[in-house]
Amino acid sequence: MSIRIEKDTMGPVEVPADKYWGAQTQRSINNFKIGGEKNQMPIEIIRAFAILKKAAAFTNAELGVLDSTKADAIASVCDEILEGKLDDQFPLVVWQTGSGTQSNMNTNEVIAYRAHVKLGGSLEDAKKKIHPNDDVNKSQSSNDTFPTAMHIAAYKMVVETTLPGMEKLRNTLQSKVESFQEVVKIGRTHFMDATPLTLGQEFSGYVAQLDHGIRAIKNTLSHLSELALGGTAVGTGLNTPAGYSELVAKKIAEISDQPFVTAPNKFEALAAHDAMVETHGALKQVAVSLMKIANDIRMLSSGPRSGIGEILIPENEPGSSIMPGKVNPTQVEALTMVAAQVMGNDVAITIGGATGQFELNVFKPLIAANFLQSARLIGDACVSFNDNCAVGIKPNMPMIKRHLENSLMLVTALNTHIGYENAAAIAKKAHKEGTSLREAAIALDLLTSEQFDEWVRPEDMTGSLK
Amino acid sequence: MSIRIEKDTMGPVEVPADKYWGAQTQRSINNFKIGGEKNQMPIEIIRAFAILKKAAAFTNAELGVLDSTKADAIASVCDEILEGKLDDQFPLVVWQTGSGTQSNMNTNEVIAYRAHVKLGGSLEDAKKKIHPNDDVNKSQSSNDTFPTAMHIAAYKMVVETTLPGMEKLRNTLQSKVESFQEVVKIGRTHFMDATPLTLGQEFSGYVAQLDHGIRAIKNTLSHLSELALGGTAVGTGLNTPAGYSELVAKKIAEISDQPFVTAPNKFEALAAHDAMVETHGALKQVAVSLMKIANDIRMLSSGPRSGIGEILIPENEPGSSIMPGKVNPTQVEALTMVAAQVMGNDVAITIGGATGQFELNVFKPLIAANFLQSARLIGDACVSFNDNCAVGIKPNMPMIKRHLENSLMLVTALNTHIGYENAAAIAKKAHKEGTSLREAAIALDLLTSEQFDEWVRPEDMTGSLK
Amino acid sequence: MSIRIEKDTMGPVEVPADKYWGAQTQRSINNFKIGGEKNQMPIEIIRAFAILKKAAAFTNAELGVLDSTKADAIASVCDEILEGKLDDQFPLVVWQTGSGTQSNMNTNEVIAYRAHVKLGGSLEDAKKKIHPNDDVNKSQSSNDTFPTAMHIAAYKMVVETTLPGMEKLRNTLQSKVESFQEVVKIGRTHFMDATPLTLGQEFSGYVAQLDHGIRAIKNTLSHLSELALGGTAVGTGLNTPAGYSELVAKKIAEISDQPFVTAPNKFEALAAHDAMVETHGALKQVAVSLMKIANDIRMLSSGPRSGIGEILIPENEPGSSIMPGKVNPTQVEALTMVAAQVMGNDVAITIGGATGQFELNVFKPLIAANFLQSARLIGDACVSFNDNCAVGIKPNMPMIKRHLENSLMLVTALNTHIGYENAAAIAKKAHKEGTSLREAAIALDLLTSEQFDEWVRPEDMTGSLK
Amino acid sequence: MSIRIEKDTMGPVEVPADKYWGAQTQRSINNFKIGGEKNQMPIEIIRAFAILKKAAAFTNAELGVLDSTKADAIASVCDEILEGKLDDQFPLVVWQTGSGTQSNMNTNEVIAYRAHVKLGGSLEDAKKKIHPNDDVNKSQSSNDTFPTAMHIAAYKMVVETTLPGMEKLRNTLQSKVESFQEVVKIGRTHFMDATPLTLGQEFSGYVAQLDHGIRAIKNTLSHLSELALGGTAVGTGLNTPAGYSELVAKKIAEISDQPFVTAPNKFEALAAHDAMVETHGALKQVAVSLMKIANDIRMLSSGPRSGIGEILIPENEPGSSIMPGKVNPTQVEALTMVAAQVMGNDVAITIGGATGQFELNVFKPLIAANFLQSARLIGDACVSFNDNCAVGIKPNMPMIKRHLENSLMLVTALNTHIGYENAAAIAKKAHKEGTSLREAAIALDLLTSEQFDEWVRPEDMTGSLK
Repeated sequence: MSIRIEKDTMGPVEVPADKYWGAQTQRSINNFKIGGEKNQMPIEIIRAFAILKKAAAFTNAELGVLDSTKADAIASVCDEILEGKLDDQFPLVVWQTGSGTQSNMNTNEVIAYRAHVKLGGSLEDAKKKIHPNDDVNKSQSSNDTFPTAMHIAAYKMVVETTLPGMEKLRNTLQSKVESFQEVVKIGRTHFMDATPLTLGQEFSGYVAQLDHGIRAIKNTLSHLSELALGGTAVGTGLNTPAGYSELVAKKIAEISDQPFVTAPNKFEALAAHDAMVETHGALKQVAVSLMKIANDIRMLSSGPRSGIGEILIPENEPGSSIMPGKVNPTQVEALTMVAAQVMGNDVAITIGGATGQFELNVFKPLIAANFLQSARLIGDACVSFNDNCAVGIKPNMPMIKRHLENSLMLVTALNTHIGYENAAAIAKKAHKEGTSLREAAIALDLLTSEQFDEWVRPEDMTGSLK
Repeated sequence: MSIRIEKDTMGPVEVPADKYWGAQTQRSINNFKIGGEKNQMPIEIIRAFAILKKAAAFTNAELGVLDSTKADAIASVCDEILEGKLDDQFPLVVWQTGSGTQSNMNTNEVIAYRAHVKLGGSLEDAKKKIHPNDDVNKSQSSNDTFPTAMHIAAYKMVVETTLPGMEKLRNTLQSKVESFQEVVKIGRTHFMDATPLTLGQEFSGYVAQLDHGIRAIKNTLSHLSELALGGTAVGTGLNTPAGYSELVAKKIAEISDQPFVTAPNKFEALAAHDAMVETHGALKQVAVSLMKIANDIRMLSSGPRSGIGEILIPENEPGSSIMPGKVNPTQVEALTMVAAQVMGNDVAITIGGATGQFELNVFKPLIAANFLQSARLIGDACVSFNDNCAVGIKPNMPMIKRHLENSLMLVTALNTHIGYENAAAIAKKAHKEGTSLREAAIALDLLTSEQFDEWVRPEDMTGSLK
Repeated sequence: MSIRIEKDTMGPVEVPADKYWGAQTQRSINNFKIGGEKNQMPIEIIRAFAILKKAAAFTNAELGVLDSTKADAIASVCDEILEGKLDDQFPLVVWQTGSGTQSNMNTNEVIAYRAHVKLGGSLEDAKKKIHPNDDVNKSQSSNDTFPTAMHIAAYKMVVETTLPGMEKLRNTLQSKVESFQEVVKIGRTHFMDATPLTLGQEFSGYVAQLDHGIRAIKNTLSHLSELALGGTAVGTGLNTPAGYSELVAKKIAEISDQPFVTAPNKFEALAAHDAMVETHGALKQVAVSLMKIANDIRMLSSGPRSGIGEILIPENEPGSSIMPGKVNPTQVEALTMVAAQVMGNDVAITIGGATGQFELNVFKPLIAANFLQSARLIGDACVSFNDNCAVGIKPNMPMIKRHLENSLMLVTALNTHIGYENAAAIAKKAHKEGTSLREAAIALDLLTSEQFDEWVRPEDMTGSLK
Repeated sequence: MSIRIEKDTMGPVEVPADKYWGAQTQRSINNFKIGGEKNQMPIEIIRAFAILKKAAAFTNAELGVLDSTKADAIASVCDEILEGKLDDQFPLVVWQTGSGTQSNMNTNEVIAYRAHVKLGGSLEDAKKKIHPNDDVNKSQSSNDTFPTAMHIAAYKMVVETTLPGMEKLRNTLQSKVESFQEVVKIGRTHFMDATPLTLGQEFSGYVAQLDHGIRAIKNTLSHLSELALGGTAVGTGLNTPAGYSELVAKKIAEISDQPFVTAPNKFEALAAHDAMVETHGALKQVAVSLMKIANDIRMLSSGPRSGIGEILIPENEPGSSIMPGKVNPTQVEALTMVAAQVMGNDVAITIGGATGQFELNVFKPLIAANFLQSARLIGDACVSFNDNCAVGIKPNMPMIKRHLENSLMLVTALNTHIGYENAAAIAKKAHKEGTSLREAAIALDLLTSEQFDEWVRPEDMTGSLK
């Protein structure tokens, strides 16, 4: 591999000749061989850095502390990053310094050196036209840029991937509520037969869960929209020009088209990541909901012959390499695995979030990586589950009817007519003798066949909250 | 022990003669010998049951399905429960049926039999004037009463204990922000010396965390205010009179003086506990904040001679049984243990919340017990920490001054005057040679002593965000 | 309340006149009003303290640093504690100082003052015949006594409650393996019908899980048997006589009849609680196993008419307050709630265990309380589940037969005869048309009726690993 | 992109013309667009599949159910996979079916079609010489192959990466124990000054933690060495030749050079992943240890001027983009982030492990991915921390001396000479007046200067457990 020499305050380092990064990036590559490629800093963080570096450059120029030619050059490389043209320039892993300094420097170096080349320079030049620290990082510190990038990336992932995915699934389930509103079926509590409800009512619980989940996530977004930028090293804003914080947040909001604001308290914004903890708490709530919903669908679709079998789900692939003809709830399985992952990630984020010290939390890359994985997985998995499973769910009417007609729990309808204990006696007799409720009721002389028909009407038992 | 015989649909059971409970309570005592007394159902759940049973009785009477004499008798026992007069009548443990049915029946039995006695009957009477199921539990099911009691108890604990405790601590810390606003001190990032800030700024981060935490909790309360009552067994409201759900929620709101409403979707309210998951997620966020704040205070107060020692905390007790004169941050330790407990409880609640099936979640007592413990511990521990530690925090001025004057990081103030790399050279020289920054700067001929005094002013470095 | 005055190095304190505790206990009561009575230090820790204080007294006497009259007096009070006679003398909560110093002092004070009274003194005496620090705590520090008490209490709970409970359940399940070895039933993978196995084979998986769990717990016990005592304040053993560590561990082993040894490294034993983390990790594994086993039993017993219904579980109580005749898997629910609690406790212990600093971990009471709850709950819940559910499990033969005969998955038996794709075609045809496999196979001309009977024999499909 | 048509039991699918995979792999790509490339099935699972497919092929041949030419062809492709030549043939993500069926089929298809090509066929051939199911998957099911691959990959990662990494770090720390055995320093408990110990003693605690952690991991390996292979679909071993299980395990042991054995109970091996839970529990314990050790090193190295500063760590990179001259404990930060990740992964694995149903756990890919990440991260991070930090740790003697000489806690040495309360009085006086202990002692007339020198000798206070 062809190399060139770059240097930083600690001395010279060998860097691949064709890469835009510099000494500090290379030191991180050399010193943090942990986890391999799959553990690279999420590209969404890099993109978020591009947004903030561009906004900072223009802000610095507008406030008179950066030459506007330099600002334009910086912005132009940021656009390339946003277009995905420089993705191979960001090799660092999550398991680096906990402030994310090295990824900030990776961004600074790539922007500076690529800008230098775009301005006609060569990577071999000892002195570049744009300086990673003095120009690209101007009015910034890793300590305020990395948390800013975290919030930008997290916010965008939530509003662009998580919420749309959830809403898509929520809407499909709502359409099922409407389609299934006349489908009367047995209810189940304690996993045991219970009084009837409609399949639409059952699905309406899922919709209510997702509605609450969407609302819970949105409740957290105002905290997440607060940006640390302007706090610099410890939150005091040292080395920033007057008006910088507000202006740079405004520009980030414009570039990203999201309602970002400057954090009212920069000390919190650097030293804690409660906003990430808060939003991820809501993602975890959604994981809880999805686990419940998916499990129900798994069990409702069980069978085909020896399960509960009250719904049919689409056949997407051969389910087993040995059992021909079997079709499995594979989308359910992916979704529930995602839910378990989000629950685990929540603990990692909780621990990372709780372990800041003094002016800086140094679990930033961990928190960012886990958050972005969760937010993306929920969005993607909701879409996958929606498109490949939920949309195709149909009631399995013969099974639904058989279960309903067999049920002993319809006896509950008799409580208000003949009292709890008499009703119990009927159900127990039928259960013991394997007969129908009607037969048992009549044998016990507790009511007539006509009364049974009049009083025990499953469709009437689902009604008051229809 | 003197006993009497009670019976239920399964037959007779021996019950202590002097207790108000009946057969079903006793069966639970006999069948669930798990964990012992400390694992009893939280008394807050029992009190919440009293509120809802009273509200249900009056609602049933108002809607014409319960005799008003019976309703008054029921309400009168509920008042006794609320006054704490019957606490020894609720012996069941958390580790019972997952719907909390047995605690619902415990309440029904105690109310019915105590009412029977108050109406002149004897516990020995085979037939009681008030029936646990037909009267006390009228228009109800365990499946909607237990989650209703969960929400009532949880909501009350949060607004009566958690939030007031947090606000008390928040206000004390805010008063410290104001007292400490002129105390310039060294900042620390990566646990290493960094640029200065004021002690007031440092504490303002803690206040911001608590403010966000309080807001996060409040954001969840609307979900938690939704009551399942009226859903009965599976959410359909079977066996409830028209208008029951709304009216009973209104009465509960009146009795408890909290803004409870009937849940718009009863299926969600029985089958999921996302509202508990959601609010506990916010409690967990607060635990994360408290862990950070308490850890900082622990470390800032470390010493007395070989630590960081920048603040002094009150001496409340002899700290060690072997090391005389030592005073430890014991309130910090209690608070951080509480934080760890809440984080653990969050996982228990997450798992319980995710594992509902069909029309019922059967991890209700687990969720309730963990939630109530967390909410109370945060409130109590904030008050304990506030009263016994936070109010007495004082800056240790000699140590603060010594650290500030020694610091190499003031060099950052020179970045904008002489450039990043020159500033770095000064700091490194001073570090290497153990000298002051001023000496190193002058030795390197990078500035004059006068320039140093003019440019390096710690108090100016804390300013832009004061 | 009548009071007396006690004093410690910080001055006088009012103490209830009739209690044996002194100033330091009272300060903790006054300063840590967190969580209330249910959060009191587990009594098992107090009992463990009694064992170690007795052992320490005799060791001190034997090594010539304590008068043997004093040692006898101390030991005599320790015996009273072990007999449960002084339980009301230990009011402190878990949420105290993280070293457990206050509970150590509570024990020291109660032992000293009770001994003083037993030796003829009065609680009102200003000077007691036995000194809490100089005598009872001799050659000790809170920092080594509390972790020693943790290990003693934890070890005893595990071997006296957890393991016997698990073994009882394991043996019951093993007896089911044998009883059910001829019961051929449908298997289920992905919650879908699969090839057959015997009910005995299904239960053998549960036995294997418990066997592995018991082994996993036992693997951790050697670490847990290591005692910190002798390390005193920071692990160096300051202020202990020669030979103390080994001798006191030997005496503890004798008194407790468990194989305790002195920890080879006292620094680890004070500053970390990896042994507690390790054993609780095994308890958490067991929780994972129990969740799986209990869930299976819940689902296998579902119905009675619209579920899977392949086993019958005992009816222990009326299952529902509104649905007569319904019997629920309540023991399963208690057991799965316990499992969720243990999983949550594991996170609390993980966080507490990870957060020690320098020479001391100050999350000791948190770790102890969570560990002891988990260990007891698993033991108790296994016994409860065993006695009230597992022993009574019976196969529901009619349902098992119906499922088996209906199954499409028996087609797998044809793979080796007619190839995977032909077999699949048969299953799909039968599935689509609602017919039997035999009918489909013959209609497709892939085999004869005789071949079907010869090749498709469920009992032969369960065989190679019987 | 050029395509070809492949088909499976559900019909034709378009596949990239140049890829070896077939219809079922492609269906998974199409149906599970979740998480993107970073979420691909770990390559270690694919390699483990290669080992088991090769072993199965040879076993099938040896037992007479597979032509040996086919076996050789299969084995030859397995070798290519093991050499990393076919890494781009395994595009599926973790978030697929929970049995890992699709990755099993991906492997079967790639092996079959690549073998077909190696045997002279073309990917365009409708019928391949080797069949993915009938040949490559012979005597197997996804349900036993995937868990087998999990154990092979997990075991290898633990013994090849985790344990060697830990041992490397353990040995470095042990060498520090020896180097630092004469370095007497202040101890700290409750983060407050305490009695002295040597720096070597402090580090010996870390070594003891790692030794226990290594032992804990090794204790779990026997469970992890059990292989599911031979259980086929539900654990009964349907469609396997006699002797298959034992022989195939033996061959896997030979190929991998690790002591794998056939699982004594195949039902457990398919339906539960307690072995993975068990070993990951030990990895989590190690994470707890590493968090403690790394935090200590972070705090011990804090400063350079305003921290504890008792050790010096290597300077590996410029620490801050704004604060010149600052060097941060970046390796500590990476290691503690890894520890937090492992703790989070443990919860994901716990939940996944607990949620198996009947004959199959369908959280297999989740469990595998989290386990492999943890095991690799611990190994890699230990090496990174070792090479870039631990080896270079040096005592900062001037600071160590200053702290030791200033300490008030040396007063403890006087306890046995003048009693606890007198010693306390001296320490309090010195603390209050800012004087030395000697001055305070003499001022209080409690001892002479000579006695002070004789009794208060820090080096003697570290001794009894040296």
